[in-house]
Amino acid sequence: MKNADKPVVAIDIGGTKIIATVVNRKGEMLSRVYCLTLSEQGPEKVISRLISLIRLVVNRCGYEMKEIGGISLAVAGLIDINRGLVTVAPNLPHWEDVCLGDVLHDEFKIPSFLLNDGSAAALGEHCFGAGIGIDNLIYMTVSTGIGGGFILDGKLFNGTDGSAAEVGHMIVMADGPACPCGQKGCLEALASGTAIARMAREHLMEGQESSIADIVGDDLDSVTAEHVAQAGKKRDAVALAVIREAAYYLGIGLSNLVNLLNPQMIIIGGGVSAMGEMILRPARKSMKEHAFRLPAYTVRVVRSKLSPDSGILGAAAYAYLKLGGGR
Amino acid sequence: MKNADKPVVAIDIGGTKIIATVVNRKGEMLSRVYCLTLSEQGPEKVISRLISLIRLVVNRCGYEMKEIGGISLAVAGLIDINRGLVTVAPNLPHWEDVCLGDVLHDEFKIPSFLLNDGSAAALGEHCFGAGIGIDNLIYMTVSTGIGGGFILDGKLFNGTDGSAAEVGHMIVMADGPACPCGQKGCLEALASGTAIARMAREHLMEGQESSIADIVGDDLDSVTAEHVAQAGKKRDAVALAVIREAAYYLGIGLSNLVNLLNPQMIIIGGGVSAMGEMILRPARKSMKEHAFRLPAYTVRVVRSKLSPDSGILGAAAYAYLKLGGGR
Repeated sequence: MKNADKPVVAIDIGGTKIIATVVNRKGEMLSRVYCLTLSEQGPEKVISRLISLIRLVVNRCGYEMKEIGGISLAVAGLIDINRGLVTVAPNLPHWEDVCLGDVLHDEFKIPSFLLNDGSAAALGEHCFGAGIGIDNLIYMTVSTGIGGGFILDGKLFNGTDGSAAEVGHMIVMADGPACPCGQKGCLEALASGTAIARMAREHLMEGQESSIADIVGDDLDSVTAEHVAQAGKKRDAVALAVIREAAYYLGIGLSNLVNLLNPQMIIIGGGVSAMGEMILRPARKSMKEHAFRLPAYTVRVVRSKLSPDSGILGAAAYAYLKLGGGR
Repeated sequence: MKNADKPVVAIDIGGTKIIATVVNRKGEMLSRVYCLTLSEQGPEKVISRLISLIRLVVNRCGYEMKEIGGISLAVAGLIDINRGLVTVAPNLPHWEDVCLGDVLHDEFKIPSFLLNDGSAAALGEHCFGAGIGIDNLIYMTVSTGIGGGFILDGKLFNGTDGSAAEVGHMIVMADGPACPCGQKGCLEALASGTAIARMAREHLMEGQESSIADIVGDDLDSVTAEHVAQAGKKRDAVALAVIREAAYYLGIGLSNLVNLLNPQMIIIGGGVSAMGEMILRPARKSMKEHAFRLPAYTVRVVRSKLSPDSGILGAAAYAYLKLGGGR
């Protein structure tokens, strides 16, 4: 049996959890397990837990490792695909130039692949989700941070090194608010979950009345985008103003992507997208106001269909792509 | 003889001039003529002049129309490639939804193609200029306005409608200075020749001493980016400050493209790029300060090799691409 016909192990390594799954060619998940990342313990311990998790998820569905076609990892970080390196991963402290592909290949003696989680999610939606049959699509995850992936002319676009589609670190307000990446005015600093929480805190600290304060018991430091969403659903004025502001900047980011890449579809995933039309409607409006008429008319901005599994299923699709045999 | 083996007519339609050439497969220009665009006379008169110019350039090199494989036009405007339309062209007033492809095909009965001038220039540099053998490259023209074109994974990337790569209308300063497109804070409003002239005028009106004032005989309204460049070469402090400021924003625009597309090369053409290292060195510095380390290390920012003919030669290459027979 060729590797391309066997099921693959598809993994999502995030700042909080590592999720490991076994997925077949059709995108069906045969088993799924997870463990905490505990990234503060450093790369070696995380990798050793990852290796155990891979054995576990394969055993769970009654396979042996030799029946697995490959291992594919979606990582929230900047990947050097040519060398199989995680070069930087903001949520994985001390992961610098970690040869994750090689480590897994040495351990399991089967093909191992590494890609950025945003790129993986774009491929997942393209192969199995909202973007089936769509040749030019952008995936954007709006969550604690903002990441993304591009399918261009029908293919995953990785860029020269594999670090393309860092949509959250597009600067849309030169010298604007600080971003965790060290720059100022990145889209992530203006429209992510973190930005929404910050803006809400600022309003509350100015003394504005809001049910957000009740939700967090006046502990303003603990305000999250989810609290803002909760209050927004109850038509809280501060929450709605914050969401509109974030949506305004999100729309500017979308308009930049629309003017640059003229996609048919932009798929929005991630925690903040769970707010649904409350944030998507004003974001679309802002996009249409800021982009050229022709590409703004063409593009559809929709929610992810596979969330939160876009990345895992995309990692599986990537393995099949690399193992050959179509797609 | 197949059309793909015949020479083609390649045309650049700009706001000021229409340049028509006959080009062979090797990218050799066999003849070249031009006339003024006089766009204020409206599309019909411009098109009739364009048709005469095509007959003229073909005659000039001793060919008949039946010996020409196709006609290819690079237009400074938003093109709908699927319908052969010039949808909007800021420098060609009243050109809205003009079916230029069809008009030329009806007149000459040979295949006619239409593409954006920035895309054409990217293809020209990729086929015959600074970008030979470079699979991921961005062309950016910095002139009165800022335009661009993308070669991604070895192919011209047009986007869904043909309106991709509008790099000048990436918003890098939300609610920043007004752009001729109607938006605020576009890269074009901060780093184009027009922006450089505006910034210089602002400094002069504040009463700052500068040799720019001498060059224009104190007629501040007539200050252009070229005057600023002239003064900059003589180390005029105001000119150098203006160029540094434009380069700073140009670098932010470049960093956005680097983080989004992770190209191997960015090729800068257009009038402002004639300033050379005076603007490119600080622009590269700003790009490296604002982009991620890996893609910023990978990319080379260089000057166009074919300027001002990148667009024309790219239009010719596009015709050969469409007529078939490789490339």
